[in-house]
Amino acid sequence: MTLCTPLTAYLGLTVPIISAPMAGIAGGALAAAVSRAGGLGLIGGGYGVRAWIEQEFDLAGDTGVGIGFITWSLVANPDLLQVALERRPKAIMLSFGDIRPFASKVAQAGIPLIAQVQTVSDAQIAVAEGADIIVAQGGTEAGGHGGKRATMALVPAVVDAVGSTPVVAAGGIADGRGLAAALMLGACGALCGTAFYASRESLAHSNAKKAAIAASGDDTVKGNVFDAIRGHDWPEPWALRTLRNEFFERWAQAPGQLHQAMPIAGQAFADAQATGDTSIVPVIVGEAIDMVTQSEHAGITVEQIVREAEKRLTMYYGSPALALS
Amino acid sequence: MTLCTPLTAYLGLTVPIISAPMAGIAGGALAAAVSRAGGLGLIGGGYGVRAWIEQEFDLAGDTGVGIGFITWSLVANPDLLQVALERRPKAIMLSFGDIRPFASKVAQAGIPLIAQVQTVSDAQIAVAEGADIIVAQGGTEAGGHGGKRATMALVPAVVDAVGSTPVVAAGGIADGRGLAAALMLGACGALCGTAFYASRESLAHSNAKKAAIAASGDDTVKGNVFDAIRGHDWPEPWALRTLRNEFFERWAQAPGQLHQAMPIAGQAFADAQATGDTSIVPVIVGEAIDMVTQSEHAGITVEQIVREAEKRLTMYYGSPALALS
Repeated sequence: MTLCTPLTAYLGLTVPIISAPMAGIAGGALAAAVSRAGGLGLIGGGYGVRAWIEQEFDLAGDTGVGIGFITWSLVANPDLLQVALERRPKAIMLSFGDIRPFASKVAQAGIPLIAQVQTVSDAQIAVAEGADIIVAQGGTEAGGHGGKRATMALVPAVVDAVGSTPVVAAGGIADGRGLAAALMLGACGALCGTAFYASRESLAHSNAKKAAIAASGDDTVKGNVFDAIRGHDWPEPWALRTLRNEFFERWAQAPGQLHQAMPIAGQAFADAQATGDTSIVPVIVGEAIDMVTQSEHAGITVEQIVREAEKRLTMYYGSPALALS
Repeated sequence: MTLCTPLTAYLGLTVPIISAPMAGIAGGALAAAVSRAGGLGLIGGGYGVRAWIEQEFDLAGDTGVGIGFITWSLVANPDLLQVALERRPKAIMLSFGDIRPFASKVAQAGIPLIAQVQTVSDAQIAVAEGADIIVAQGGTEAGGHGGKRATMALVPAVVDAVGSTPVVAAGGIADGRGLAAALMLGACGALCGTAFYASRESLAHSNAKKAAIAASGDDTVKGNVFDAIRGHDWPEPWALRTLRNEFFERWAQAPGQLHQAMPIAGQAFADAQATGDTSIVPVIVGEAIDMVTQSEHAGITVEQIVREAEKRLTMYYGSPALALS
């Protein structure tokens, strides 16, 4: 199964799908599964634990994965970029911050640099600073962290703004309908996180996977409660989308009080992480969770997305040609 | 030019485009222009001024327009529904509230009832209560009022949830790429507001049209400042997206103080409405404003959207067939 676009040509893929570098969720197994299926799997560099990153690259082996970092966090641990580059990843993705301190090092290593942005102006800056590929993330519907714009209008505006640079759509895409829509908007691929959160290879707790599968996008909320309890000092304008749960509802009403309650609330949160209590710990998925109805091998999900997109793109026309230029 | 879908079949249109019933903006001239171009133009019933509604229906003549009401506001002026039904509109659209008090009257009059919703659960309720067509509005990117979900993930989830009821996508769609994407998501048409805000037929002040044309979706914000100053008591969870301006920035920081400052601020706002001072009055457009680059006749915009969507839908396949089933 192949679906060719400028993205697949640039990165040597057979399908235009990138799996999101979800912190704590996207390890080497998930990234490898997506890359084996012809897409680009990204290890979640997250908040930067060197031993974990090396372990997950080891797990991915020679499947051709990449890695994604939270840019503002990477500033505090810049050596991690070198750790990643030594593994000769298929690509490095940087999100949420200024790519300038890192872009030249990635270029010197000859590794494609993917910059994920949340506004038109940030897309223009990223291209000027050396990004090879732009991910235009509709940050309101995306799971995890995002900005304030949504996918439908952001993607075509970014496509118009960045000239010939390939643009990948992210945010709210979890099936072939979303991939086909992304291609119509002018993107040359889709980056999906929520679609893989409950996958067999995901590192999410089994309770979290069950909660994700049972949920609707209507059940998701956006806020900073879970960043506060985890001690992640996310800068504006980014905030976290998760499923709504008891812990969120309680502290979103009284954000000032969470800091005061920290020792006890922090211990309860740590205990809940250990047991996978999803009434307390966040299930970090986006609005596209409506489309996730079972825990599947990630490679099979990639195939399903591509097959459904091909069907959508051709069902009215009867032509098998799928080469997008 | 025709582009056939279940929406066009149901309503007897030749193109699957509905213009949004923008309060104070979408009068009879704009609605008529969209209907003449083969779509469905909707007069903005807004907050309910009977004489204005009758005048705008008169202006639209026999072009086959519909009208849209703000449902919670219509509760206070239920007679306006009868005023509209007597004009035999092509459709009645209800948004933002419970359609039950009105659905049976619309059905008895034999007029198609379009319900605009912002969540999957509200879509299911609307179908159960008699909606003939569902508009799934990604309320985060839409101009004007909207809810908390975004178009990309909401539309396919609503399509899956409402069975055979035709679903129209709204929010963030202002060109043919957006219409083509909406069709890929499973919708059978698009409702566009921002695309027509700066049109020749729009009732927006010329300054507001100029500001809209110059703006990016990055320049839009969401909040309740302009509802507060206008005395519109919008219920949760809906809020208003507009261009950011000085008035918004000032009062969004200190919402409690606006009420206290009301006599003076209210007079300044009224003066600014008279002069079209867009540093004070809101330019009510959504994130898709990036795609609006000139003031065009609405009928020409309809043609451009359809032509671009057809090109997108066929460019890779070489087939002119465009009948979606």
